[in-house]
Amino acid sequence: MNIQAEWMRGGTSKCWVFESEHLDETATSLDELLPKVFGSPDSRQIDGVGGATSTTSKAVILHRCDDSEVDVEFTFAQVGIEEATVDWGSNCGNCSAVVGLYAIEQGWVVPDSDITRVITRNTNTGQIIIQRVDTPGGALPIVPQAQMPGVATAGYKVGLGFRDPAGKTTGSLLPTSNPTDILIAADRAWTVSLIDAGAPVVVLRAEELGLDTADYDSWMAAVDSQLNVLDQVRREAAVRMGLATTPKQAARAIPKLAIAAAPQDDQSDASVMMLSMGRPHPALAITGSVALTLGAQTPGTVLGEITGGEPRATLRLRTPAGVIETWSEVREGSMYVGVDRTARSIATSTIHLPESLGSVAGTDLASASR
Amino acid sequence: MNIQAEWMRGGTSKCWVFESEHLDETATSLDELLPKVFGSPDSRQIDGVGGATSTTSKAVILHRCDDSEVDVEFTFAQVGIEEATVDWGSNCGNCSAVVGLYAIEQGWVVPDSDITRVITRNTNTGQIIIQRVDTPGGALPIVPQAQMPGVATAGYKVGLGFRDPAGKTTGSLLPTSNPTDILIAADRAWTVSLIDAGAPVVVLRAEELGLDTADYDSWMAAVDSQLNVLDQVRREAAVRMGLATTPKQAARAIPKLAIAAAPQDDQSDASVMMLSMGRPHPALAITGSVALTLGAQTPGTVLGEITGGEPRATLRLRTPAGVIETWSEVREGSMYVGVDRTARSIATSTIHLPESLGSVAGTDLASASR
Repeated sequence: MNIQAEWMRGGTSKCWVFESEHLDETATSLDELLPKVFGSPDSRQIDGVGGATSTTSKAVILHRCDDSEVDVEFTFAQVGIEEATVDWGSNCGNCSAVVGLYAIEQGWVVPDSDITRVITRNTNTGQIIIQRVDTPGGALPIVPQAQMPGVATAGYKVGLGFRDPAGKTTGSLLPTSNPTDILIAADRAWTVSLIDAGAPVVVLRAEELGLDTADYDSWMAAVDSQLNVLDQVRREAAVRMGLATTPKQAARAIPKLAIAAAPQDDQSDASVMMLSMGRPHPALAITGSVALTLGAQTPGTVLGEITGGEPRATLRLRTPAGVIETWSEVREGSMYVGVDRTARSIATSTIHLPESLGSVAGTDLASASR
Repeated sequence: MNIQAEWMRGGTSKCWVFESEHLDETATSLDELLPKVFGSPDSRQIDGVGGATSTTSKAVILHRCDDSEVDVEFTFAQVGIEEATVDWGSNCGNCSAVVGLYAIEQGWVVPDSDITRVITRNTNTGQIIIQRVDTPGGALPIVPQAQMPGVATAGYKVGLGFRDPAGKTTGSLLPTSNPTDILIAADRAWTVSLIDAGAPVVVLRAEELGLDTADYDSWMAAVDSQLNVLDQVRREAAVRMGLATTPKQAARAIPKLAIAAAPQDDQSDASVMMLSMGRPHPALAITGSVALTLGAQTPGTVLGEITGGEPRATLRLRTPAGVIETWSEVREGSMYVGVDRTARSIATSTIHLPESLGSVAGTDLASASR
């Protein structure tokens, strides 16, 4: 049995892109089908299309929509490696970036100007994401030329804008109603901003950690030595934001934590470092960058104090991987906040399933074909 | 620019299979082209088809032959990951297993009986390899069912037989002319057999290491604790085989070393454990299994003493991954020695190159397309 699929790089991930109609033809549940396609369970995924790492064992399932609100619905699947499982619980910002490009390459959306907007809905989260694909002169460039931090090679430029991202988890951009709060953690007081946009994020000033704001390269080592303290701050913040009843019960992934400082030069508007799962992130998760962007537009928050706290079209954030620019726009009464990625198709493929599936894979057939 | 390719599992490797004519169309040297296709240099190969490990960054280039001796010529390429390089210095036994299957799937060779033989020549080594592909009733099974140690899923059964493999490196199956030799290493004497077939291999009895021959599972830990001593034996053997002038100058990969013992039960003809690059190999490299097979057919060698030292059609060797069966056959005056693998196609693909290549990728074009 065969399945049509497009293997695409989205941001810093590799994603297998399927049209839902093609998967439907297998008459097999996706929880059973996708692990087989990816070669799971197997730590090496040696007999399937998976890449044996979390950033290369991802699928995106697209459904072309005829309704007036969105062009494409998409569902993200994190496919297990050592287990034959699929995690449908969250979206992936990197893989999201392939959707608009795919829609244009397939002719689902026709480019109409220098930037073509594709309206998408992620079904894992319900989030509407507008995708701004660079189409200079009304067409995709023959040779993609856009660069992004963390990827050495060029791709097509795709901006991902989250529609009205504030308060999706807690109901409010500022869950405590305060631009800053004071937390007690590790036997001292911390001034932080608690922001809910894209994802819940706690932001604190680099100065509180004793970081040298004039020497960004020195942050990594200094932060590494204070990870335990930072996790205590993060857990206190979880309680304040209503995400946990005690610090101990706080989830490992939520809220995220960001450290921020005034820019060290005129290449950026602020220096930031984000922690993900307890470790410094090499760049910025898209969800985290949305929170920082709205924080910077909110007077009195940690980032607002650094950048001015005014609405702005773009925000340049220094990260370990380089300066990342986020953008904001208001369209038809909604606020879109986003960041640019690059994406491109690596291969157009017909995947051959390793074995027959479901009821077809019976013992009788197996012995008959020997 | 696009390239047609087949992504195939061969044994325990994933291999990208190209027809040489398709690569010629790019008018780009393979040393430049293949790293770009695979996404190198990049430790994650995030923008190409490579899998970021040595067993998943492999290419096989096929050329259909019209001459009377062989059906297909193939060249193996180990594509660098962190460096934009290609190593053409050796063949890969696992990737070799895709060649016969590909030739049948493409109609280059028409199945004619229950086992279809495809004659191949590996250009890296000059080795003729006969591939015995199971085609029951004169056709590939609709659903492949063959299993092999180290791969959880089924594939098509492909036997790889090396033609006249003895002495390819040193000129003689027994480079010292002796079935056994005594080496001094680590302050004691070792009785070993020095065999050159497929690859140069030094074989010693498990008893010399104090291994419990009735308890194969105990070998791994016991061998792990004696790796340093075994490497000294291996280096002494290199000198005796004429592969190095001093033990210190011995290469890390050649000769290989194998430990052998009488079988612990009637499931196998001998228990063996092979070292590769200084570590116990989970199964057997094909080249190493060829040396063990001919050793077992040679009176007076370590394996010959265990198995009887007579010509035999099959030999069952216990390895950490399970029992591996090798086979031998004489056809038209040549000896073929081999082992079975499984292979299957994972995906039929059109690969999209990440950028324009060579002289086309000039600055002028880059700026023009923006």
